[in-house]
Amino acid sequence: MRDIAKLFITTIENGQPENRLDKIATEEPLEIRIVFEQHGKTIDRSISITMRTPGNDLELAIGFLFTESIVESYNQIKSIAPASNRPSCNVVRIQLKPDTTFDPELLQRNFYTTSSCGVCAKSSLEALRVSGVKKLDPDKLRVSPTIIQKLPQRLRNAQSVFSSTGGLHAAGRFDIEGNLLEIREDVGRHNAVDKLIGERFNVGQLPITGEILMVSGRTSFEIVQKTLRSGASILAAVSAPSSLAVQLAEEFGLTLLGFIRGNRFNIYSGQERIHLPG
Amino acid sequence: MRDIAKLFITTIENGQPENRLDKIATEEPLEIRIVFEQHGKTIDRSISITMRTPGNDLELAIGFLFTESIVESYNQIKSIAPASNRPSCNVVRIQLKPDTTFDPELLQRNFYTTSSCGVCAKSSLEALRVSGVKKLDPDKLRVSPTIIQKLPQRLRNAQSVFSSTGGLHAAGRFDIEGNLLEIREDVGRHNAVDKLIGERFNVGQLPITGEILMVSGRTSFEIVQKTLRSGASILAAVSAPSSLAVQLAEEFGLTLLGFIRGNRFNIYSGQERIHLPG
Repeated sequence: MRDIAKLFITTIENGQPENRLDKIATEEPLEIRIVFEQHGKTIDRSISITMRTPGNDLELAIGFLFTESIVESYNQIKSIAPASNRPSCNVVRIQLKPDTTFDPELLQRNFYTTSSCGVCAKSSLEALRVSGVKKLDPDKLRVSPTIIQKLPQRLRNAQSVFSSTGGLHAAGRFDIEGNLLEIREDVGRHNAVDKLIGERFNVGQLPITGEILMVSGRTSFEIVQKTLRSGASILAAVSAPSSLAVQLAEEFGLTLLGFIRGNRFNIYSGQERIHLPG
Repeated sequence: MRDIAKLFITTIENGQPENRLDKIATEEPLEIRIVFEQHGKTIDRSISITMRTPGNDLELAIGFLFTESIVESYNQIKSIAPASNRPSCNVVRIQLKPDTTFDPELLQRNFYTTSSCGVCAKSSLEALRVSGVKKLDPDKLRVSPTIIQKLPQRLRNAQSVFSSTGGLHAAGRFDIEGNLLEIREDVGRHNAVDKLIGERFNVGQLPITGEILMVSGRTSFEIVQKTLRSGASILAAVSAPSSLAVQLAEEFGLTLLGFIRGNRFNIYSGQERIHLPG
């Protein structure tokens, strides 16, 4: 298992040392490269190096390209493969079909800077609006609070690496009955989400309309952005959202839930999808 | 206070909704720009856009440049200032002195790719070794386990924004008696560390040899890298480290502690700095 490393550590309890073999979540860099045709030439460009937990690397790579709005559909992709057949290979190469229209400018960061002071929350929201993220259509989806409250424990129970290391974030997809459909783990929360969405991309099953995407930990702008790309209707989290996460979810019609603990949770946006009494 | 946003949310408890005013940690983009002379021309280049909690932006910007090994010392800096005097300005410009030797190649990511498969953990460690991160000198520093166990609560008690939002990471500096010297908060753990180290950079007080740097949450490769740049002797965390965090700490002589909870904690490297019985 490349996702877990074992090493001897010292545990101090009440001042007394004890040496023991411990399990730790693996973190290694992954380079994502994209190969495309431009003006009759083949270009092989490195677009990201991310620190990740090895495993599901192809899903992570394509999930990253999709959630960052660099590619749009399965039809654009010729191949996704490790750069070598060494088991420890940390480079994934994604080759686009030659006839694909692809704008290398998309590889720039999806923000723009105004001439005066620049980089405001508003401009990043604008940038999303023009980069393939669509506002969710109104729907008749209604989820019971009872189901929401069961999600964190179901996600936790399915976390195989976390349970042995305590060191991984998880992202999971649930249907509206609260059944876990798929889970991915990683030292980076955004990577766990990319792996989850990349898996759907690779089987041509995006968008995941009507599903609930759940993350351990907190929700940031980036997690909401990736969720919106997936088409999920509800984003649920164990902890707090940031201000920009709420703003973005609100604007794009996503239901955002947080602090799901015990018999309580908070609704930050899209309350209409939660079935309330009366 | 720009670091907290207030908005109306719905809390569901036992299926019953209650509307209330909630406080949320602010997240906004910050663009870091660097101005330098090259071949007689002045170049003004954007080097990073990070999502951060507003506040201590100048510390964050210079801390980022220093911990990423782009600048080395206070003597290189002509000015650090917001790009405009609007209170909501989200751009910081750092101007280097004209006579400063500065290699724009440093703005490339600090990894290198081998011709075969590339990007391995080993190569990232090599890259650090040549980029201004030095192995810690052996020292006579000894800290009592009793002091280590008090750190998480002291950090938490000092977190002003966390206590009202539940949404922020913290990084703090402690002396070896366990006294809190400084704390910074941010939605991003790496930003909290950059703010903390940037503050020391700005007053010309780096390295912070002999101090303990503590982070809420987990320790990754990136957090260890930044800590090594600061010169701190011990890195303590509430949660788990990653495999690469341990490897890096071990190689550079940093004491790495994790899972500091109640009367227990783990030593992952540099055990000689913890005072044990016998």
